Amino acid sequence: MLPDFSDIEKAARRLERFAVRTPVIESPKLNAMTGGRILIKAECLQRTGSFKFRGAWNRISQLDAAAAPGGVVAYSSGNHAQGVAAAAEIRGLPALIVMPADTPRIKQDNARSYGAEVITYDRATQSREEIAQRYVKERGAVLVPPFDDPDIIAGQGTAGLELAEEAASRGVHLDDVLVCCSGGGLTAGVALAVEAKSPGTKVHTVEPEGFEDYARSLASGRIERNEKATGSICDALMAVSPGEMTFAINKRLLGEGLAVSDAEAAEAVRFAFEVLKLVAEPGGAVALAAVLTRRIATRDRAVGVILSGGNCDAGLYARILKREI
Amino acid sequence: MLPDFSDIEKAARRLERFAVRTPVIESPKLNAMTGGRILIKAECLQRTGSFKFRGAWNRISQLDAAAAPGGVVAYSSGNHAQGVAAAAEIRGLPALIVMPADTPRIKQDNARSYGAEVITYDRATQSREEIAQRYVKERGAVLVPPFDDPDIIAGQGTAGLELAEEAASRGVHLDDVLVCCSGGGLTAGVALAVEAKSPGTKVHTVEPEGFEDYARSLASGRIERNEKATGSICDALMAVSPGEMTFAINKRLLGEGLAVSDAEAAEAVRFAFEVLKLVAEPGGAVALAAVLTRRIATRDRAVGVILSGGNCDAGLYARILKREI
Repeated sequence: MLPDFSDIEKAARRLERFAVRTPVIESPKLNAMTGGRILIKAECLQRTGSFKFRGAWNRISQLDAAAAPGGVVAYSSGNHAQGVAAAAEIRGLPALIVMPADTPRIKQDNARSYGAEVITYDRATQSREEIAQRYVKERGAVLVPPFDDPDIIAGQGTAGLELAEEAASRGVHLDDVLVCCSGGGLTAGVALAVEAKSPGTKVHTVEPEGFEDYARSLASGRIERNEKATGSICDALMAVSPGEMTFAINKRLLGEGLAVSDAEAAEAVRFAFEVLKLVAEPGGAVALAAVLTRRIATRDRAVGVILSGGNCDAGLYARILKREI
Repeated sequence: MLPDFSDIEKAARRLERFAVRTPVIESPKLNAMTGGRILIKAECLQRTGSFKFRGAWNRISQLDAAAAPGGVVAYSSGNHAQGVAAAAEIRGLPALIVMPADTPRIKQDNARSYGAEVITYDRATQSREEIAQRYVKERGAVLVPPFDDPDIIAGQGTAGLELAEEAASRGVHLDDVLVCCSGGGLTAGVALAVEAKSPGTKVHTVEPEGFEDYARSLASGRIERNEKATGSICDALMAVSPGEMTFAINKRLLGEGLAVSDAEAAEAVRFAFEVLKLVAEPGGAVALAAVLTRRIATRDRAVGVILSGGNCDAGLYARILKREI
């Protein structure tokens, strides 16, 4: 069952008082540079530092706690882990996060800071799905998938709903909306919201170069896979292929997929630091990078940009600022 | 003539469409840590990266261009320079900024990026006031002072007005508002706005330790000076003494002045990076530092914090992230 716009409206009501209605930021400098109006949805300012809390809360707030005595389980080394952990903490449910053993300590600590239990596994020899499923059975827990789930998609879609509402309140009709894309949950939710609230607006995925599974899938009309699962600084965008459900939505609604290099993503992180004063992680900055590098026309146009997260390791961020990346 | 609240209301109307109505951000994590509600007015997201655009625009938007054929002159190495340059650019007026010769190149470039002319002087042998006055006479220009001016104070006060309005719209009565303080213009404006819109709320200055001229002046009832003019990472807060006009307002309205160390300011910069995902400069983060270090009671209280700017040199920021400061 694919979610539709009414599911996003319901999600928006569930998120009231729990999620941050993140600001939409316009930079006079960026507008002047691009000759257009660039509306930046600052999801780095969301609870847990990324949009992922939206989907996690939409899913977990509806859980029947009696039917899930073991709480929730998720596999993620990043933003989804924090979103699930924070949402479970609010509900008072236990959360178990399955992470690769080589995950930076800071990311493990972030999940634990929301009260989650963290289990590590060896990427080379173990399957995270099997480990997660074992805990689901042993504990009577519920798996919260990162993107291919109607409630997750609808929750992420609230970011697009808020962006469309805010653009309308400023008298702006968005020509395009650019969304960073990994498994496609945020993109699908945003595309559904935009279809309903901003007809005529084109939604585009933005991915790291070399990891354009979504762009290739949109072009071929069937699910394509990346050849590799690591090797970009955009660690938040490493899903190897579109989700079945997200692709079913996105292939109907999306324009051409875009891609930017790691160097361009890093430049966008620096731009966010220097001009916007927002902390962006590389994967969260690819849509901004696509604007800065003119992957899309901006002159006399209005473009929405989802700046999706700001959970960047301090060491990596310092290297980006020093132009070592 | 001291400004009053009606001047702030007029300034607010002048700033519409030109200044950013910056978001007030609440972090569930910070609220949980402090046991209160901390409302952060994110002035780092203001045009030019700090609140200074507010006062500069309020002053410069009212200038009679015919009476100032030479445009505007300001002396500042930092945020005031950018605010004045950006405001003059909008009006199409020339702007000349007088900066110490040892000002980092990036700050000179920032002022030039708004079309300003930059003149440098030798701190050891020349007086910036004399240089500025010479240009004022030679060119028929108007000096825009950094803080001791009714229009500047009223302009900065709009940040306090917006904070008070936003708190009220969330049903929050602020117990305290913490404001970083150098010459006292922002503080005076915020205090006037809060007096009118949030009666009973106490406003406090926050300064770098060793540079507590304002706290000492408030305690003694007369204008006191700092012994030194440099030596803190909070370069935005180095005015050597309160302004005459700002002190006349602040001594009537303010509670006790607070101070934090450079290390505490740096820790607040890191907190803004890690948790809030906002880029703060050290001087802009001292009010947040005062909350994080419990210089003020927060349990079951509501505290407004002005996060006043984010114009931090990338090299310094990288060192702060790496805990070298």
